[in-house]
Amino acid sequence: MSLDYQNRLEQLQQYLKEQNFSIALIASPANVFYFTGFDSDPHERFMALVWDGQTAEFKLFVPALDKEIAENDSFVEKIIPISDEADPFSILKNNVGTDIKSIGLEMKETSMFKHRNLNAAFPEVSYDDIQPFINKLRLKKSRQEVTYLQEAVDIIEKVLEEGMKKVKTGMTEVDLTAELEYLMKKFGAEGPSFSPIVLSGEKSALPHGVPDDRKFQNGDFLLIDFGVKTKHGYCSDTTRTFVIGEPSEKQKEMYHIVLEANQAGINAVQSGKPLKTFDLAARDVIDKSGYGDYFNNRVGHGLGIDVHEEPSIHANNEQLAEEGVFFTIEPGIYIPGYGGVRIEDEVFINEKGEAEVLTSFPRDLQVL
Amino acid sequence: MSLDYQNRLEQLQQYLKEQNFSIALIASPANVFYFTGFDSDPHERFMALVWDGQTAEFKLFVPALDKEIAENDSFVEKIIPISDEADPFSILKNNVGTDIKSIGLEMKETSMFKHRNLNAAFPEVSYDDIQPFINKLRLKKSRQEVTYLQEAVDIIEKVLEEGMKKVKTGMTEVDLTAELEYLMKKFGAEGPSFSPIVLSGEKSALPHGVPDDRKFQNGDFLLIDFGVKTKHGYCSDTTRTFVIGEPSEKQKEMYHIVLEANQAGINAVQSGKPLKTFDLAARDVIDKSGYGDYFNNRVGHGLGIDVHEEPSIHANNEQLAEEGVFFTIEPGIYIPGYGGVRIEDEVFINEKGEAEVLTSFPRDLQVL
Repeated sequence: MSLDYQNRLEQLQQYLKEQNFSIALIASPANVFYFTGFDSDPHERFMALVWDGQTAEFKLFVPALDKEIAENDSFVEKIIPISDEADPFSILKNNVGTDIKSIGLEMKETSMFKHRNLNAAFPEVSYDDIQPFINKLRLKKSRQEVTYLQEAVDIIEKVLEEGMKKVKTGMTEVDLTAELEYLMKKFGAEGPSFSPIVLSGEKSALPHGVPDDRKFQNGDFLLIDFGVKTKHGYCSDTTRTFVIGEPSEKQKEMYHIVLEANQAGINAVQSGKPLKTFDLAARDVIDKSGYGDYFNNRVGHGLGIDVHEEPSIHANNEQLAEEGVFFTIEPGIYIPGYGGVRIEDEVFINEKGEAEVLTSFPRDLQVL
Repeated sequence: MSLDYQNRLEQLQQYLKEQNFSIALIASPANVFYFTGFDSDPHERFMALVWDGQTAEFKLFVPALDKEIAENDSFVEKIIPISDEADPFSILKNNVGTDIKSIGLEMKETSMFKHRNLNAAFPEVSYDDIQPFINKLRLKKSRQEVTYLQEAVDIIEKVLEEGMKKVKTGMTEVDLTAELEYLMKKFGAEGPSFSPIVLSGEKSALPHGVPDDRKFQNGDFLLIDFGVKTKHGYCSDTTRTFVIGEPSEKQKEMYHIVLEANQAGINAVQSGKPLKTFDLAARDVIDKSGYGDYFNNRVGHGLGIDVHEEPSIHANNEQLAEEGVFFTIEPGIYIPGYGGVRIEDEVFINEKGEAEVLTSFPRDLQVL
């Protein structure tokens, strides 16, 4: 079984036709990948999957140096290479119909710079945002996508299991990070889905801290938040927190509150309920324990092709949970100058509307 | 010696005052880092260094969960945290003066989505692009920055030297990539500056190919294009191409043409000359050899905090080279289905207006 690009493109085209767009540009690398299978970061170069309303045809515009890979990988067969010295907006104009009146594009992806260039190439057009429609498609994961997500989760759990065997006092955060990234590739990942967060001692209180030369000591929290991107292009994002040596009473207390919050968040998951209820269920546990001031971020986020995608599981999100949605539940307690605990799992809302937890790495407090 | 944030901010402020902006938003993570020392990727969250013309004050708006790191790392002391459930545009509006008439921002960084939200918060303002000014500042590297760039080049050369000792037939591209990334961290890098390009055999013809399970064979080209980002936040980007086992006459021919092109490109470097002349000097060697159809990208690009930044060294760029500019020279010959050669060095235009090559890894054909 492979991903159904044909179906994705048909759904997209139906929407674009209904909206009466003259043309549409899909430029975010993740969306181009979603619709074509061509996975590439063009950096500052121009890349777009373009739909032409006059011919009802998709064409993929790529940097010239990616032409061969695009021809191999893209489900869309018509590839238009753009060389570095060419003006992409002229090439775009020459490759679509005339009488362009409306353009569909991703407004979060389209810069004011590109907008001005499009205005110059296509004067007096109107613009509409197609990202919400695409997000809606991407929001609902197919079983095949869940298989790929499970693969990403399984790899990171193998990495965690092997990696933890190497931890010892005196080792630095950076040393362990290097080992973990090595294991990711060894176990078949394309690479990390984001820069691994490996933080020890008081640094574990930094939700987005960066590993450095701090050496592991007895009594440290060791927080590891990481994931892989697989060759199929899907991401994982898992966190476990350990204690090196004997945990203190306070460490145990923090850990067990976070674990309870994590479980409460997962238990709250059900289709039809507002997403905020998952956040509030976890947050309530932490608030009631008196640590509410130390949990100042949302409880989770969607992931898939991107490590952060829709939905956002935060305390004000009234959006209703649906079958097929895939996201993290990751409450934490972060005490500046002392340390932090986060436990993060990946959750899928299955065909029955229930939580299916993809992570299976033990969640009990583990002492290294 | 450390980077002179004070001086950078003063230059920026002087420009913003001259332009009579009411406020200015610097939102690209690389620019925020350049001006404040705070190095963070906020993903989809709102982050901006904001200058308020009424108070002539800089404030750094960051996601709440990055507050502590920002307070530690940022040269700008006024930090405004934004929690996940808050509306960043309201917070922005409440934290700057009233009577906002004009906003300076980075047009390539500002999405149409953000533009519309700014329009809603600040009706009837005009917008101007401040990126060209910032690019001009970032274009000219100080000696301190060159020290950091040299550090990035030195690390990648150590990685290359150690890594090449591990190459043997039967090893896969992914295996070698994992080893190289491990060595990057071991030798003190924060990580790769981009996903390493490790390509063998016919795959070496793909300028942006992705390492996979292809096993090294005798007679393969082995092309390695990679770099690190150091803890100081600066990047390297170096390519060497090797042959595994005995090279064929054709391989030798391709290699020597590319080497000659690389040298011709470097020899052409001088301040005051149009940047295109560096591209044309290298291109001319390849064209005259009859391989011109197989070199279809620009000869180089600037780098610094970003692995791709200004200037672009392409055949139509009339911009004049200046002292302090730092860029790659990386001609190549890529024959689809056969293989490719690229030799890439980092070049700085020094105080005398001459090329200073930071790479010192041997450029002669090396057989593994």
